[in-house]
Amino acid sequence: MTASPSVAAGRFSDQDRAHMRAALTLAARGLGRVWPNPSVGCVLVREGRVVGRGVTGAGGRPHGETEALRQAGEQARGATAYVSLEPCNHHGRTPPCTEALMAAGVARVVVACEDPDPRVSGGGLARLRAAGLEVASGLLEAEAQELNAGFFLRIREGRPLVTLKLATSLDGRIATRTGESRWITGPVARAWGHGLRASHDAILVGIGTALADDPELTCRLPGMADRSPVRIVLDSRLRLPLTSRLVRTADRTPVWLITRPDAAEPARMAAFADCGVDLIPVEPGPGGEIPLPQALRTLAARGITRVLAEGGARLAASLLRDGLADRLEWFRAGLLLGGDALPAAVGFGADRLADAPRYERIAVRPAGEDLLESYRRRG
Amino acid sequence: MTASPSVAAGRFSDQDRAHMRAALTLAARGLGRVWPNPSVGCVLVREGRVVGRGVTGAGGRPHGETEALRQAGEQARGATAYVSLEPCNHHGRTPPCTEALMAAGVARVVVACEDPDPRVSGGGLARLRAAGLEVASGLLEAEAQELNAGFFLRIREGRPLVTLKLATSLDGRIATRTGESRWITGPVARAWGHGLRASHDAILVGIGTALADDPELTCRLPGMADRSPVRIVLDSRLRLPLTSRLVRTADRTPVWLITRPDAAEPARMAAFADCGVDLIPVEPGPGGEIPLPQALRTLAARGITRVLAEGGARLAASLLRDGLADRLEWFRAGLLLGGDALPAAVGFGADRLADAPRYERIAVRPAGEDLLESYRRRG
Repeated sequence: MTASPSVAAGRFSDQDRAHMRAALTLAARGLGRVWPNPSVGCVLVREGRVVGRGVTGAGGRPHGETEALRQAGEQARGATAYVSLEPCNHHGRTPPCTEALMAAGVARVVVACEDPDPRVSGGGLARLRAAGLEVASGLLEAEAQELNAGFFLRIREGRPLVTLKLATSLDGRIATRTGESRWITGPVARAWGHGLRASHDAILVGIGTALADDPELTCRLPGMADRSPVRIVLDSRLRLPLTSRLVRTADRTPVWLITRPDAAEPARMAAFADCGVDLIPVEPGPGGEIPLPQALRTLAARGITRVLAEGGARLAASLLRDGLADRLEWFRAGLLLGGDALPAAVGFGADRLADAPRYERIAVRPAGEDLLESYRRRG
Repeated sequence: MTASPSVAAGRFSDQDRAHMRAALTLAARGLGRVWPNPSVGCVLVREGRVVGRGVTGAGGRPHGETEALRQAGEQARGATAYVSLEPCNHHGRTPPCTEALMAAGVARVVVACEDPDPRVSGGGLARLRAAGLEVASGLLEAEAQELNAGFFLRIREGRPLVTLKLATSLDGRIATRTGESRWITGPVARAWGHGLRASHDAILVGIGTALADDPELTCRLPGMADRSPVRIVLDSRLRLPLTSRLVRTADRTPVWLITRPDAAEPARMAAFADCGVDLIPVEPGPGGEIPLPQALRTLAARGITRVLAEGGARLAASLLRDGLADRLEWFRAGLLLGGDALPAAVGFGADRLADAPRYERIAVRPAGEDLLESYRRRG
């Protein structure tokens, strides 16, 4: 079992805390490109000096420990390893990190949190302890849990973490009555939005948004084009045109369409496949719509841990109604559009205040002239 | 002419700045109870020691200088007076403050900004200079302008400053589809809302809100009951019941109804008067509604400098459409209500983004679990 933070706090020095903070910062860099794995940062410190740093590589390998040990070489002997997640202890495509740490002569291992998989949780730490290493866990645990919340949700509940991104006026509107939406927020907020894309495994939009905007849904920050996530459209009846930007760029950046098994004629379905689009069949519910919980389960089964939902108002409403919008990233511009403008989320049955989905504020930051409010779902 | 801030900055010391900051803080205390006058703070400093402090009294008298000079007595001789607004130089119900400062032997007068009335602007300073006092102006001028923005608007444009207060969900809703609105925001935000009432001369609501909520619209913070502003309802057809809380408490805290001259039978109009309610006739526009610009002009003519508009969605829309919502105080709670819930403002014709009223962010502060966003109208 992990010690509670209050008990754990006394076991760690300010130095320990600083090095683990660095390991978490490294780990954050991997978000969005390490799925289906968690992103793990590792810092090796010997006699107060950092001798190696590593973070999980693209696609999940190498592990952060491997890279840090490679950098440290002989300097790893007697060092302390700060790892943001319990080192793995099973033989997969690579030997277990526990063995690598032991073989390198690491003397002490400090981890932020244990492996969420109940079958292996604590196993890595026990192995290290049995080999005579000094082991401590629970340092900056809450931060580490938050960092890999997507991976943990996939393991524990079989679904990815969903971040709902919104860009609205002060009165919560995403477009005028006539549909004008470019641009409500300013360039800083929009660039930040592209950064959010890079830290997620996939972007999810409804077919309405895909048809209305013909979006590309890539990360277009300078030098970060290779950080574009998988682009996913909820398209129960395969209405996305083969000439859309998404389909036309599917050979460069993956496009997945979540659709009914009987969505279209075989020829049309084959045409999508020819363009490199992946069709993911999900059985529709009684109303003919694809149930979001099932859709997300399918994505988790494919390894997706972090989904950025970008629109539109119907997708947002469905996520809110089903309790699936885990995080909100809300860009808010200093203007008002009025009650006849398009809402951030259409109605989702919150007839009473007690029914309303509630969120805890995590951060509020200026994003140029706009504001970025970040929230976490309560309960 | 007032020197530009960049020029002025070099003329003042850090001590000057600190004392003027204190004078502005004093002046802020008077907001909401000094109308029709501006709120003026005065700090008298002799040999680095504060010897007198004053702020405009309730109803506009005594002036801040008078009270500070009274406190200082003989200590005023040779002192510096920091005054948030140019001292008056005309004989009204009290002798001019310029004469009082001269008579007391004050050696130097520093003012934040000059009198906005173009007929007298600079006259007080010229008088003091002619009498041999050292005079400087423009220290913390922007802050002083903001502080008395309501008074300045009344003098320059013949209307009060309007602060639109909103308490909404993240998606800009003031009530669920079924009308449930108590409470979207938490106790800290609501208490803060009562504080806003105390710093305004009047509260303005539409008749819809008055009928739906039967509100009292008083300041109910402990010890601040006497800071309740004038309560004003836009009620073109005198639909407010004589049994409403507002009418029943009109003998204790003023209630004004802005209404059509022909709103009701003479007997009903007399009944309101008997209850102590003041009827303010304003000619309706072509649609039968009372034009807000005219209504506000009438309030300014009665001396009102700061109006807090508290609801509902139609009043908010009218203010936004007419460019009359000068400030926004937006309390935002961490929940969503969806597109079928009641909007903060009904539609007001912003068909294009270019039509939208735009606001500059002044401050964002936590208000308990909610957020308070403060904005100033652009342009």
